[in-house]
Amino acid sequence: MRPSGRALDELRPVSIEVGVTRHAEGSCLIRMGDTHVLCTATIEDKPPPFLKNTGLGWVTAEYGMLPRATNTRMRREAAAGKQSGRTQEIQRLIGRALRAGVDRSALGERQIVIDCDVIQADGGTRCASITGGWVALRLAVNRLLKAGSITSDPILDHVCAVSCGIYAGQPVADLDYAEDSVAGTDGNFVLTGRGRLIEVQMSAEGATFSRDEMSALLDLSDAAAKTLLAAQAEAVGS
Amino acid sequence: MRPSGRALDELRPVSIEVGVTRHAEGSCLIRMGDTHVLCTATIEDKPPPFLKNTGLGWVTAEYGMLPRATNTRMRREAAAGKQSGRTQEIQRLIGRALRAGVDRSALGERQIVIDCDVIQADGGTRCASITGGWVALRLAVNRLLKAGSITSDPILDHVCAVSCGIYAGQPVADLDYAEDSVAGTDGNFVLTGRGRLIEVQMSAEGATFSRDEMSALLDLSDAAAKTLLAAQAEAVGS
Amino acid sequence: MRPSGRALDELRPVSIEVGVTRHAEGSCLIRMGDTHVLCTATIEDKPPPFLKNTGLGWVTAEYGMLPRATNTRMRREAAAGKQSGRTQEIQRLIGRALRAGVDRSALGERQIVIDCDVIQADGGTRCASITGGWVALRLAVNRLLKAGSITSDPILDHVCAVSCGIYAGQPVADLDYAEDSVAGTDGNFVLTGRGRLIEVQMSAEGATFSRDEMSALLDLSDAAAKTLLAAQAEAVGS
Amino acid sequence: MRPSGRALDELRPVSIEVGVTRHAEGSCLIRMGDTHVLCTATIEDKPPPFLKNTGLGWVTAEYGMLPRATNTRMRREAAAGKQSGRTQEIQRLIGRALRAGVDRSALGERQIVIDCDVIQADGGTRCASITGGWVALRLAVNRLLKAGSITSDPILDHVCAVSCGIYAGQPVADLDYAEDSVAGTDGNFVLTGRGRLIEVQMSAEGATFSRDEMSALLDLSDAAAKTLLAAQAEAVGS
Amino acid sequence: MRPSGRALDELRPVSIEVGVTRHAEGSCLIRMGDTHVLCTATIEDKPPPFLKNTGLGWVTAEYGMLPRATNTRMRREAAAGKQSGRTQEIQRLIGRALRAGVDRSALGERQIVIDCDVIQADGGTRCASITGGWVALRLAVNRLLKAGSITSDPILDHVCAVSCGIYAGQPVADLDYAEDSVAGTDGNFVLTGRGRLIEVQMSAEGATFSRDEMSALLDLSDAAAKTLLAAQAEAVGS
Amino acid sequence: MRPSGRALDELRPVSIEVGVTRHAEGSCLIRMGDTHVLCTATIEDKPPPFLKNTGLGWVTAEYGMLPRATNTRMRREAAAGKQSGRTQEIQRLIGRALRAGVDRSALGERQIVIDCDVIQADGGTRCASITGGWVALRLAVNRLLKAGSITSDPILDHVCAVSCGIYAGQPVADLDYAEDSVAGTDGNFVLTGRGRLIEVQMSAEGATFSRDEMSALLDLSDAAAKTLLAAQAEAVGS
Repeated sequence: MRPSGRALDELRPVSIEVGVTRHAEGSCLIRMGDTHVLCTATIEDKPPPFLKNTGLGWVTAEYGMLPRATNTRMRREAAAGKQSGRTQEIQRLIGRALRAGVDRSALGERQIVIDCDVIQADGGTRCASITGGWVALRLAVNRLLKAGSITSDPILDHVCAVSCGIYAGQPVADLDYAEDSVAGTDGNFVLTGRGRLIEVQMSAEGATFSRDEMSALLDLSDAAAKTLLAAQAEAVGS
Repeated sequence: MRPSGRALDELRPVSIEVGVTRHAEGSCLIRMGDTHVLCTATIEDKPPPFLKNTGLGWVTAEYGMLPRATNTRMRREAAAGKQSGRTQEIQRLIGRALRAGVDRSALGERQIVIDCDVIQADGGTRCASITGGWVALRLAVNRLLKAGSITSDPILDHVCAVSCGIYAGQPVADLDYAEDSVAGTDGNFVLTGRGRLIEVQMSAEGATFSRDEMSALLDLSDAAAKTLLAAQAEAVGS
Repeated sequence: MRPSGRALDELRPVSIEVGVTRHAEGSCLIRMGDTHVLCTATIEDKPPPFLKNTGLGWVTAEYGMLPRATNTRMRREAAAGKQSGRTQEIQRLIGRALRAGVDRSALGERQIVIDCDVIQADGGTRCASITGGWVALRLAVNRLLKAGSITSDPILDHVCAVSCGIYAGQPVADLDYAEDSVAGTDGNFVLTGRGRLIEVQMSAEGATFSRDEMSALLDLSDAAAKTLLAAQAEAVGS
Repeated sequence: MRPSGRALDELRPVSIEVGVTRHAEGSCLIRMGDTHVLCTATIEDKPPPFLKNTGLGWVTAEYGMLPRATNTRMRREAAAGKQSGRTQEIQRLIGRALRAGVDRSALGERQIVIDCDVIQADGGTRCASITGGWVALRLAVNRLLKAGSITSDPILDHVCAVSCGIYAGQPVADLDYAEDSVAGTDGNFVLTGRGRLIEVQMSAEGATFSRDEMSALLDLSDAAAKTLLAAQAEAVGS
Repeated sequence: MRPSGRALDELRPVSIEVGVTRHAEGSCLIRMGDTHVLCTATIEDKPPPFLKNTGLGWVTAEYGMLPRATNTRMRREAAAGKQSGRTQEIQRLIGRALRAGVDRSALGERQIVIDCDVIQADGGTRCASITGGWVALRLAVNRLLKAGSITSDPILDHVCAVSCGIYAGQPVADLDYAEDSVAGTDGNFVLTGRGRLIEVQMSAEGATFSRDEMSALLDLSDAAAKTLLAAQAEAVGS
Repeated sequence: MRPSGRALDELRPVSIEVGVTRHAEGSCLIRMGDTHVLCTATIEDKPPPFLKNTGLGWVTAEYGMLPRATNTRMRREAAAGKQSGRTQEIQRLIGRALRAGVDRSALGERQIVIDCDVIQADGGTRCASITGGWVALRLAVNRLLKAGSITSDPILDHVCAVSCGIYAGQPVADLDYAEDSVAGTDGNFVLTGRGRLIEVQMSAEGATFSRDEMSALLDLSDAAAKTLLAAQAEAVGS
């Protein structure tokens, strides 16, 4: 029934390749089927100004898409002179999600910037950015621990994300673009390694949904998270 | 236990005053306690370019805060030269929420712009904007019907919204600023007149939540919607 | 003869409601007929950089119109990405006018920001902003005096403003939009409580005027000021 | 008494050199003492969009200062990414002033753009721009008449401008920078060849003025206009 | 002598992988050692406005760097709100270079946009963009030919580029970052398949160079081109 | 053969008038035929931030064109809200060229800003800016030396520039606009007083060139430099 022939709860093939760029303190290329996102982590020695002298650190994210990551070329945001509302909404979500898995006190007064750049898009780029962004963050923090810059691990738990939605009347996991563009209701679910929730964003445009449908999608996301967590664990070697 | 002394499920006093500006095709001033939002609806004879010759209409929203709507003066966005990511996120939410309650085919090739301007803020401005924005929309559509510009009512149902969150370990309805600024988890719930969901946005920064907590907040939002729907009905005189 | 049926020298009903927002140090809603402007005063502990270590304070103003304050919706300046030339011209005028009534040395090294936001427009918004802005300023300064932050009153005199013009060949006071949009010559007159002038801006587009016409408008403005000063005095309780 | 040793009503030496750039349809370099402004007129075959199919033309102006036209280098507006409020205010004034001397119906559906670029500044640049801008406009219109593009002269009268102010307690004409920077009150006066007024802008910062003082400045401007009009007439050869 | 141990005329390993993104009409990932650039070609059915009804096509380019393509994270241009002067200079060069190898008449009224996004930088990114951009262009044009949209091949010749400079007193080919950052003189050389020149940009900051040194660099670039042309030919399968 | 009737190696008449603005520390108006550029030098007591505490100074340049410097009016960059890619490319070139002739250590921790504003354009504006900019720089540095602010001369040599190109199949010097707009290949050559090269930019759009053609243009530029250097020497009185 799904355009890709996948089962309702079947994710696209997930791969997370680490160490893909020589400059960043942590990096990975995450592939969820044809969605490919390059995630890098940059450690900055200073926290943002509003955290000066608080003892707390910060994790933030920026998101971008290459102009031809999509089927039709999109205008380059740098040339347009601003980031779209969609871009800002996504990067705020990624930052918020990753911060929820970090003890900012243990991180100390520094900032880690996660850049998520979509090389190729086929739906689910914000969720892939969160799942891959966590890997880049984990690798950067490992480097801080190894260097003795921090002594206790500020990473509280894994953070991963998946989109699920109602496609052709059925709840399905990990929407690709063909599904996403016609789904009446879809949601993004951010979860921890222990199965707790960090963010739930369900949205219907030109439709509505019931609590039962919401539950079905939450169930799907819960199952999907197990696959994503395993891929993360394998990527970071733990 | 709540700073305001309210019961856990108690909303702030709601009032919706209609016809507050003489120019707009629909308008209201919604007050949720000390949160005051002026909502106006403008009917434009043409749809946005991407809907030309589709027979479909559009509903969109813009959101702003007066610089001194808050306790500390915020920089005027017009002077700063751009809308913040937060503003864009909110106005996208309002537009999406209101469109979900509209039959865009019955609306025909026109656009209704809902402007939500926060005169005074005390938490929950985006939810008040949705609840009040629907009233302005309803009044503008009434005018189209009365003028015979459209013949069948494009409004499918009421749309209202409320924020609920976990404050001091307890699920509470209609967070004010004092609660919102310290709540570990909070959510915005957009509901229809028939109790179906349009949008659920739950978010935890530096914390996580369980599905049980999520259910408790959904229950609160469901009860709150009844009060809001009644206030809307009274305001539009139906 | 006037569209509103007013006498040539008759102002629209003036009302100034104070304390209309709970956050600002001073606030009022001024209504000149259907022109409604919300004025708030914000006290900032630091002067602008160019006054550092001079012992002098500053008063500045910002002006905005809600998009649907006018008969046709205007593009939101925050969305457009800049303030129009008209907006900047008006807020520079308001600031200049209010500063002329202040002893900046007695104010000390702080800044008071007057925000004038037009809720509904029917001509004369810049003049209403000055008249109402002075009330917000007076109330904020009262608070400084009461708190003992300053010991001598920096307010030298009232400041109020009115527009007058040649409508259908006759000099008329307090132009509304119907008059303003067709007047060949119109002017804005800023006056003090003692009847001295702070600013006179007379302008003809596609026409010219004589010194006699100018005198007639100055006479009208002088009379109008008395009404405005009385409304200010009543509002601030002096 | 004046820093320059001029009499109270004495203008700086005025010179208007025409035909200073080979590309523009009309051009002049106006010098008021050390204030030098290059004015060019460009004829565009189409009016601005809002005048399409009205039979009316338009005259507009743009104003700029070279970064080192002033004693201290000012930031280049093109590099800053926007025109200052002051620049916009000035160019709006120039356009308004020149339009008041034009029969837009006789001009027909075309636009004339007057560019006023300050090469060297010593006070009074906006007034020099108006006086010189009129010369560039006159020359461009002459070309239209000569080419037979229009048959009746759309120029109704000369337009010129001068700044006068209260310096050291005395009314003086044609303020230079040394005077302008300390004058308590100053004004810009735009006049026609027949001695009628187009624009009067009097302004006091940190001071106030009386109607008598205003009259004295108007008298000075009236006398000054005669000199400026003669210089214009000589420049355009009439 | 070179930091990398390369011979004076030795290029870094070159690889050009084609078909790296499923959406673009042509794409490749070019690697010059640690400099990796993703090049995509987008075919647009319409030419830019200035070529409408001329029968001519256009080739243009845009360039960007991922924020962490470099050793230190650079600010994202989309967030900064504009492309730097360096970025614009580079993308203008790429477009100009590729157009020189195209018969715009044979291309017909369409535009091909080449996006060059630097995934990882180690010097020479603009040259790699030209060499890789040509491959993406060639592949996109092949598609047009295959589809019969155009009948004669608009590609006149290969276009490739290399940077050469004076490092430690010696002329060297294909500067990497370690060399580029200290070279007194360096140049970018764009060449065709037949060994003719399209662009030469030699530049000295804080130094100067002689015509003999220039000749030495031109000789190096000529030799380097042979390697690059072979890599291009292999990549496009000709 | 040339539109102007000049010999192949004949420059347009060169004149450099110094001291043309009373505010700048150094200034000149350079005329290369109908290309007129006003160059001013501003001395700033502080270097740019990245040179703080290095003992080194900086020379930078900004470039602009008056809107009607050209045959068709160009949009004012300040009004457009940004400098074009062409403008940025040119001003980066001017700065780089002038810095190559300066000992930044002898200059000490200060900055000299060269503003080059094109009053009238007829091709070759960037080259005229460099030649004239050097004169403004020389004059400003003379003032520093005279005042004893620096003790050894930081100017190492003259810097001048000329454009040469292939016009109608022939190498010609100092292209004017009529030639420049049709030349298949053209180049900008920046040279020192001793005949060494600072920058060579040769470029072909829709064409290519050989090393022999390049040599011919270099020969022309070498000869042209002698005339330009003499004009500079005369202007600065050495």
